Amino acid sequence: MEQIGPVLALTLNRPEKKNAITQEMYQTLATKINEAAADFAIRVVVINSNGDSFTAGNDINDFANNPAMDQGSPVFNFLFAIHNFPKPLIAAVKGRAVGIGTTMLMHCDLVTANPDTKFSMPFVSLGLVAEGGSSYLFPRLVGHAKAAEIFLTGRTFSADEALAMGLINKITTDELAAAMEFANEIAEQPPDAVINTKALLKSGSHEALNQVMRAEGELFRMAAESDEAQQAFMNFLAKKSKVK
Amino acid sequence: MEQIGPVLALTLNRPEKKNAITQEMYQTLATKINEAAADFAIRVVVINSNGDSFTAGNDINDFANNPAMDQGSPVFNFLFAIHNFPKPLIAAVKGRAVGIGTTMLMHCDLVTANPDTKFSMPFVSLGLVAEGGSSYLFPRLVGHAKAAEIFLTGRTFSADEALAMGLINKITTDELAAAMEFANEIAEQPPDAVINTKALLKSGSHEALNQVMRAEGELFRMAAESDEAQQAFMNFLAKKSKVK
Amino acid sequence: MEQIGPVLALTLNRPEKKNAITQEMYQTLATKINEAAADFAIRVVVINSNGDSFTAGNDINDFANNPAMDQGSPVFNFLFAIHNFPKPLIAAVKGRAVGIGTTMLMHCDLVTANPDTKFSMPFVSLGLVAEGGSSYLFPRLVGHAKAAEIFLTGRTFSADEALAMGLINKITTDELAAAMEFANEIAEQPPDAVINTKALLKSGSHEALNQVMRAEGELFRMAAESDEAQQAFMNFLAKKSKVK
Repeated sequence: MEQIGPVLALTLNRPEKKNAITQEMYQTLATKINEAAADFAIRVVVINSNGDSFTAGNDINDFANNPAMDQGSPVFNFLFAIHNFPKPLIAAVKGRAVGIGTTMLMHCDLVTANPDTKFSMPFVSLGLVAEGGSSYLFPRLVGHAKAAEIFLTGRTFSADEALAMGLINKITTDELAAAMEFANEIAEQPPDAVINTKALLKSGSHEALNQVMRAEGELFRMAAESDEAQQAFMNFLAKKSKVK
Repeated sequence: MEQIGPVLALTLNRPEKKNAITQEMYQTLATKINEAAADFAIRVVVINSNGDSFTAGNDINDFANNPAMDQGSPVFNFLFAIHNFPKPLIAAVKGRAVGIGTTMLMHCDLVTANPDTKFSMPFVSLGLVAEGGSSYLFPRLVGHAKAAEIFLTGRTFSADEALAMGLINKITTDELAAAMEFANEIAEQPPDAVINTKALLKSGSHEALNQVMRAEGELFRMAAESDEAQQAFMNFLAKKSKVK
Repeated sequence: MEQIGPVLALTLNRPEKKNAITQEMYQTLATKINEAAADFAIRVVVINSNGDSFTAGNDINDFANNPAMDQGSPVFNFLFAIHNFPKPLIAAVKGRAVGIGTTMLMHCDLVTANPDTKFSMPFVSLGLVAEGGSSYLFPRLVGHAKAAEIFLTGRTFSADEALAMGLINKITTDELAAAMEFANEIAEQPPDAVINTKALLKSGSHEALNQVMRAEGELFRMAAESDEAQQAFMNFLAKKSKVK
């Protein structure tokens, strides 16, 4: 975490695990973002990452031990922190952006990506369901057919495809510099106009998303406890250890 | 109709009339789809066609004799069957996809298309209105300007344009093989995760569509009985017999 | 203003000020559009412009003296006239389409553009907020990330980008001829089918937009009176006089 003038940079920093996000990391992010909302000195937040990947998503061991995905859980605290954050939120992504690594981008205002970025939301392949508001936001962004294809097959998609979808704003080999450039440009704008315009842009979907995210969380929790998810998890972990 | 493992293929089979859909065909499709919803052995349904076209749309003679487009009619039974179908529904299209041949695709989860496919929804040219939920789904997919252009001019659009719109997933000369490949890939996924994710993807528009489809049906029925539609129909049939 | 058969052309005609729109011009447009709604002889309205630009947006001096943006004001009368206009509304744009010059296009059914057109909605840079329904319509058209980028940075975008967004239908050096061609093609369609289909296309968002446009208007009015907007206006006028 580093504050450069009015821009707060939050860095996923667990590169040895491809930044797989633990409960503790979710809670830290949630707290920092909520604090930034209340801090007059901060005008924009940029989420980025150390290492070669944005994030491998939920830490799967951590998640297997504690699949809580309901109100008050660290994951939910993080999701609602970005959903409710009133100031511009920018993400700079690279390498793998798995699961919540892709869904969180739909709550960001701008996203820059390295050309090497691979996006994926393989919830269904793991016996889980779309989460983080993605079941609402993704079909509205790309249409039902593309959303169904991505979710139901679990396939990855490239930075080029993400740009065509409108999921990201820019592809560049220095995705962090591009994110900081956007951040600084927006930080110089009249701050109330920025906050009110962001609120207007979100107002048509904000309340609907509150409900969707709770419904997804409930289905996600039930799915995580199901036999088919347990089986899918074991297959995933077996495959993973074989690859190693 | 043919069941290949967990995939049920339903084939429009009236090639001598470019698969124009009769009341009887609508009802058969509706029944088969509703049965597939309840059949544990079926995980995916693929709609495809014999001959050189997907479908010329409503059989116009059949429709002129019986323009019923309200609840309980075969057309409505078909539309609500695909609207409510809880499992993945895939279409493979080629040649002409006229009227409901295009609107039904908006209720499918994935669509593959032959490069020769020509899509069109010439309702307005026939004195009718957008139907099958298309007045709701199409502008959300392509924006109001493109939707207005397609509906108000009645022009056809190509497979390339349909892909750019997000109406279809893939263009290939063997569109049925591609549809079966998608179907088999999805049939191997954890089935509850598939069904719950599809339900989440549709939940934001499902109830709104119920209302829209009834409103469209009412306007469609009134339009079909209007003088301007009778005139447009006669012009259409006259032009058609001239072309022959 | 000129009526050519069933097509009414309304021309922004203040080229010496790049067609910056005064209160009087808003009210005239509103009145003409409302009259066209009730005139059986008129089937389509085309908005176009004299000179080298579509419009520089709100006349900024006029606006500084009278920033009213509430119900009954000329701007609101214009916005609700195009929002409620039941017949096809087509715009032909060129040069600059600033502020409401871009937002009004989202209420049009079809838009043709000269390749030289530069679109922009620099509300935030002026300390203002998105208006004219654009906070609702624009993110639905292009996704949240693109909408946030355009609004929060205030940058212009090209005709090519507008076409890819689905904001416009066609790029051509004779944008007015193309608009008239669309208008005449649609004017020949069965008129009730045209009106009912347009109503269906808009029905999903019409009531929501009524509320959004009022909320935007309220925030816009408060923003216009704020210190940060006064500052931004002064900066804008100073820069403008320097450029001259």
